[in-house]
Amino acid sequence: MSPIALPSHEAAVLYGPKDLRVENRTVFPPGYGQVQVAITCTGLCGSDVHYYQHARNGDFAVQAPMVLGHEAAGCITAVGPGVKNLQPGQRVAIEAGIMCKNCTYCAQGRYNLCKGMRFCSSAKTFPHLDGTLQGRMNHPAHVVHPLPDSCSYESAALAEPLGVVIHASRRAQLAAGQTVLVFGVGAIGILACALAKSMDAKRIVAIDLNQARLDFAKANGFCQQTYCTTAADKGKTLDDQLRRSKELTQTILQEFNEPDGFDVVFECTGAEAAIQMSAHAAITGGKVMLIGMGSRNVMLPLSTAATREVDILGSFRYANTYPSALSLLASGKLKNIEKLITHRFPLKDTQRAFDMVSRGQDDDGNMVLKVMIESA
Amino acid sequence: MSPIALPSHEAAVLYGPKDLRVENRTVFPPGYGQVQVAITCTGLCGSDVHYYQHARNGDFAVQAPMVLGHEAAGCITAVGPGVKNLQPGQRVAIEAGIMCKNCTYCAQGRYNLCKGMRFCSSAKTFPHLDGTLQGRMNHPAHVVHPLPDSCSYESAALAEPLGVVIHASRRAQLAAGQTVLVFGVGAIGILACALAKSMDAKRIVAIDLNQARLDFAKANGFCQQTYCTTAADKGKTLDDQLRRSKELTQTILQEFNEPDGFDVVFECTGAEAAIQMSAHAAITGGKVMLIGMGSRNVMLPLSTAATREVDILGSFRYANTYPSALSLLASGKLKNIEKLITHRFPLKDTQRAFDMVSRGQDDDGNMVLKVMIESA
Amino acid sequence: MSPIALPSHEAAVLYGPKDLRVENRTVFPPGYGQVQVAITCTGLCGSDVHYYQHARNGDFAVQAPMVLGHEAAGCITAVGPGVKNLQPGQRVAIEAGIMCKNCTYCAQGRYNLCKGMRFCSSAKTFPHLDGTLQGRMNHPAHVVHPLPDSCSYESAALAEPLGVVIHASRRAQLAAGQTVLVFGVGAIGILACALAKSMDAKRIVAIDLNQARLDFAKANGFCQQTYCTTAADKGKTLDDQLRRSKELTQTILQEFNEPDGFDVVFECTGAEAAIQMSAHAAITGGKVMLIGMGSRNVMLPLSTAATREVDILGSFRYANTYPSALSLLASGKLKNIEKLITHRFPLKDTQRAFDMVSRGQDDDGNMVLKVMIESA
Amino acid sequence: MSPIALPSHEAAVLYGPKDLRVENRTVFPPGYGQVQVAITCTGLCGSDVHYYQHARNGDFAVQAPMVLGHEAAGCITAVGPGVKNLQPGQRVAIEAGIMCKNCTYCAQGRYNLCKGMRFCSSAKTFPHLDGTLQGRMNHPAHVVHPLPDSCSYESAALAEPLGVVIHASRRAQLAAGQTVLVFGVGAIGILACALAKSMDAKRIVAIDLNQARLDFAKANGFCQQTYCTTAADKGKTLDDQLRRSKELTQTILQEFNEPDGFDVVFECTGAEAAIQMSAHAAITGGKVMLIGMGSRNVMLPLSTAATREVDILGSFRYANTYPSALSLLASGKLKNIEKLITHRFPLKDTQRAFDMVSRGQDDDGNMVLKVMIESA
Repeated sequence: MSPIALPSHEAAVLYGPKDLRVENRTVFPPGYGQVQVAITCTGLCGSDVHYYQHARNGDFAVQAPMVLGHEAAGCITAVGPGVKNLQPGQRVAIEAGIMCKNCTYCAQGRYNLCKGMRFCSSAKTFPHLDGTLQGRMNHPAHVVHPLPDSCSYESAALAEPLGVVIHASRRAQLAAGQTVLVFGVGAIGILACALAKSMDAKRIVAIDLNQARLDFAKANGFCQQTYCTTAADKGKTLDDQLRRSKELTQTILQEFNEPDGFDVVFECTGAEAAIQMSAHAAITGGKVMLIGMGSRNVMLPLSTAATREVDILGSFRYANTYPSALSLLASGKLKNIEKLITHRFPLKDTQRAFDMVSRGQDDDGNMVLKVMIESA
Repeated sequence: MSPIALPSHEAAVLYGPKDLRVENRTVFPPGYGQVQVAITCTGLCGSDVHYYQHARNGDFAVQAPMVLGHEAAGCITAVGPGVKNLQPGQRVAIEAGIMCKNCTYCAQGRYNLCKGMRFCSSAKTFPHLDGTLQGRMNHPAHVVHPLPDSCSYESAALAEPLGVVIHASRRAQLAAGQTVLVFGVGAIGILACALAKSMDAKRIVAIDLNQARLDFAKANGFCQQTYCTTAADKGKTLDDQLRRSKELTQTILQEFNEPDGFDVVFECTGAEAAIQMSAHAAITGGKVMLIGMGSRNVMLPLSTAATREVDILGSFRYANTYPSALSLLASGKLKNIEKLITHRFPLKDTQRAFDMVSRGQDDDGNMVLKVMIESA
Repeated sequence: MSPIALPSHEAAVLYGPKDLRVENRTVFPPGYGQVQVAITCTGLCGSDVHYYQHARNGDFAVQAPMVLGHEAAGCITAVGPGVKNLQPGQRVAIEAGIMCKNCTYCAQGRYNLCKGMRFCSSAKTFPHLDGTLQGRMNHPAHVVHPLPDSCSYESAALAEPLGVVIHASRRAQLAAGQTVLVFGVGAIGILACALAKSMDAKRIVAIDLNQARLDFAKANGFCQQTYCTTAADKGKTLDDQLRRSKELTQTILQEFNEPDGFDVVFECTGAEAAIQMSAHAAITGGKVMLIGMGSRNVMLPLSTAATREVDILGSFRYANTYPSALSLLASGKLKNIEKLITHRFPLKDTQRAFDMVSRGQDDDGNMVLKVMIESA
Repeated sequence: MSPIALPSHEAAVLYGPKDLRVENRTVFPPGYGQVQVAITCTGLCGSDVHYYQHARNGDFAVQAPMVLGHEAAGCITAVGPGVKNLQPGQRVAIEAGIMCKNCTYCAQGRYNLCKGMRFCSSAKTFPHLDGTLQGRMNHPAHVVHPLPDSCSYESAALAEPLGVVIHASRRAQLAAGQTVLVFGVGAIGILACALAKSMDAKRIVAIDLNQARLDFAKANGFCQQTYCTTAADKGKTLDDQLRRSKELTQTILQEFNEPDGFDVVFECTGAEAAIQMSAHAAITGGKVMLIGMGSRNVMLPLSTAATREVDILGSFRYANTYPSALSLLASGKLKNIEKLITHRFPLKDTQRAFDMVSRGQDDDGNMVLKVMIESA
């Protein structure tokens, strides 16, 4: 008797640097506690781009063909045994990290710090856990989140990067009425602006090297004011650079009439100069929230932060943010947030999408912010 | 008719670098809301020593003769108009900082960050507010704290540096059962150890360059284990030094069988190498509490802190710590804390005391920790 | 030589129950640290109405003629000695409570609990501190708050009741994405709804006995759903009433498809039945925030709250809320909030205004929410 | 071929009210992720006694033979597949509750509120999960906690009730230097006193109806002062009782010279009068922590709590307390805590132990606090 043929789907699989192949794969049924999701769209993230370009990201090298992508939404097509809260047909967002649930971090609700976390599309664990740039995916039900009716699939795919800034804002204890400074208005920086605005920040100012990004941010109401630091060339010596970053910060604070500094500084660039400026730009008793991470070691004007009780805080991914993020995206409060999605590609053109993101602009010279891959 | 002669008292007044003169001064009656305190003892602090040596401390230069000292206790001798809660004869500790009470920091209970703060023995504001190295002092009643019966004057003088570490521990959210690493076991570091012990830290480890201090700390039960970093010579280049501080930290964590790191690291040296080590030595999700402040700019391995959500926190003085500190000192829980006071001098020998502290040891080669000046 | 005549202004002075006289009073210059404000408008509060009707409020009886009103805005006309941050011509809101600044509550930023607080228009302290229903007023500069340009005087007068709900929401740790239930949609309840909405509550449901208020709240977008409890007659016995309040709550939770309950319940009625329902209506781990205070003793289903870790929290006035409240009012985020002001009277007609509020409706039978007295 | 015989052990099984049978049971090997523990001792808890007496506890009725006990320690005898952190021979404490790990409460670190929690010795879930009054037990490794070397098995069995008060103290934000009032000095109340003392409470006062318990608490240094409320007979009417509880509280506060009240009140009796007194006995801005739960509905003087921002907080079991509790027990800081264990019985005499606890005293008329059943 012939076996029943399992259906198949397409997956964009990374085989090596810039070697991305769209393959047919068998669709297996969901296991215990899992649901099967037909992925509708996946946003591309900076870490995906690193993997695409170098087949590695920081210390983590790809050791076997791996599917990228972790900002995804879709529709449940099947439900495995033991799953009670979800059912086929439900529209959902996929939280890509699967925590161990057994360690103290998990027990204390800080599962983003779980050392046993397996994260879809990350090469940190082996065998790698495939990401969402594919047609179907089986995933544990407890990290699959139903969408509010008014939340589109594409909005839901933004719940992942939005979760990053929600997590950061919680750690920074961002509150209504505060002043916010954002370094770097790529996708994360714009989401930080939008979140701060939805939380009634008193004032949001953005700094970037790229005037076009700043114009975009301001024109769409994500921030009230901008400052372009094209003139902020690096100093020749460390001392020189420290002096320049301090003076530039003072100039900016004067210009924006916030001589005491900003309540919360979201540093989304990872650039050493921006991190230095953050320490000066935060108000006494304020927070520097490090979201961008590019510089392993940074010469930091530490005493100006420490003696003014400016907390220097990092944030790593997110925990317990999906419900809030989806609710916020559904509320319509993040006005113009859909404009963050500048480009869309079908799954079969994923390599072309990565190439464009790598160049930083499209063929017409337009700015690239968030690129969405449509699986279905 | 002849005027009634006001009584006089002695004050140790700083006129310039190493120019300290003991003078007779008139005792004026306390003003509205003030009490008059007969100072019994004052502990010498590192900032006092800086002022003594250089007539300045960091950016703040002495511009007129100033009395040093701000870790003091005494007995109320008179009460000004409007004072209801205190009366002559009460034993008290003096909180040296007088906050403005009008700014948002004061309104929010973070008065240590008040920009209008006038602090006895600090040259930051002018006219300078005299410190406590004198026989009598008028001070606002609301920053004068009654002593529990079982708290001696000398213990009460320790409430100031203890308040520094209480404030730091609050900011670090230090809790029972946590592991604690302390860099630098001078007076502040030992108080950090003692406080952590009183709060039932699971384990307290101290690191210092000075074996004698470590031996003292361990022998008196302030910490369970120690590590002497005499071998920790500076690297030739920044990269070299960063590598060394990382490797040394890993060695120490292995030696103490805490491979994941410590929950809270109290950095009490201000040395760049120790700050670098702190970032590696804190556990994922832990805290680096910067108490010592010597290095204006520090090359920091920031990504290892930020991506592990190790918070880098400074602390500046203290707010709302006196009642807790006095209660703790009175409880007897800080076992052996009186041994912190290694030397005592009468007020008239204040200059000799400063000279000894400046040398770092007494004439017999003994270690100097806390020096107490007895005013009465 | 004749003295220089001081200018005069009008004040609405309470002499006894329903005995309110508009008088001419001399305008004295502001004292040290004070500013003089020309009051433009004052909102009437429930406590004002109690004083008007009974010349007392709870335990506090009026012992001398007193000016009512404490929700006020105006324009600075003069500045006393020692005032640096404010200047004539500035538009401001007046924070009516003057804290002692010397107690532990003040030092810790919880000045609303200060036992030495003197509050304009409250008979708790004697001599009474006059309220804002007058043309001019001298008030300490540190509790006078400049208005953002886009904040009208009338909006600024709402900063006081809005501060009440901001303070309550902080204590309840209200966060984006939470579900909120509000008992009682008078002015405070509507402000609670509006605040929750501005903070991106996932869902806001209001309960009241008065269908017209509910219709107003829903029609203006303050809440998404309403429930009228006209049928909620009191039980004959305590047990009967407890059973009814539990069953009614279960019915409501089912109807709104929130069987687990709401994250935060704002109880703004002070009615025993509503407080009982609140304990059932909060989700496990949620908060019951008691804002309305009418019932001195309440038969409470305490075990259902305690074993589910539903915190039962009161809130008393506010601390450190004016900047946030003014920023929020200026932002336009509290859509339709101006509709809360249903009636306006000139100062000379204050008694007529109080009489209308006492009746609960105007001559045409219209609902009364917030009544504004225009001083100038 | 004959099967390999599995070993057997003894279990004390509840078949009905006061029907407890010691049976032989087969020892099965631990399953995936489980360890097998040879139980050495189990402390008896009030809920065990309720089950023993009535075969039910509140709403939860025993529906099948069930092993009681959930305050246990023992030694690992075998390790199931997938267990990496534990090994045979390790001394451990058993955390009796197995959370679902999939709900939002678990994800947020509040797993004590998990609705899917299965708790050993509780009849809430069916099939019931057996408790620890047996010789061997298989239990998930992630809720099995290694003992510090200096922690005895009996101390480790106290980690469960100590965890209850640690959890309560965290929710109450108990801090050094605070004043603490404890209603009811049974085992939980004494642990609350001991914990408060270890955290350097400034003053600990205990109230009970039973003078012998108070004498025990004071003689062993758990509290500094006591008050016996034998005279506190119930009022004839509700109003009468409310008046009496208020007056009695005022008398007590005067007697202890704490007219403003205590910072934290731990209510460990569940009695209505004590809960009423708690609301009066807490200082403005303080906390009433409800640990005892006997009264379903309580007539509460709510306005005195709410308008003074006295938080009324319940606590249910504990989350993330075992490491702290074991560390604290091992530290020796809870002086005399071993005296809490007044009686010991071998497993075969469990029924006799329950009968004694039910009577409230032993055959010699001695007070019963914590009874330990020795399994091995």
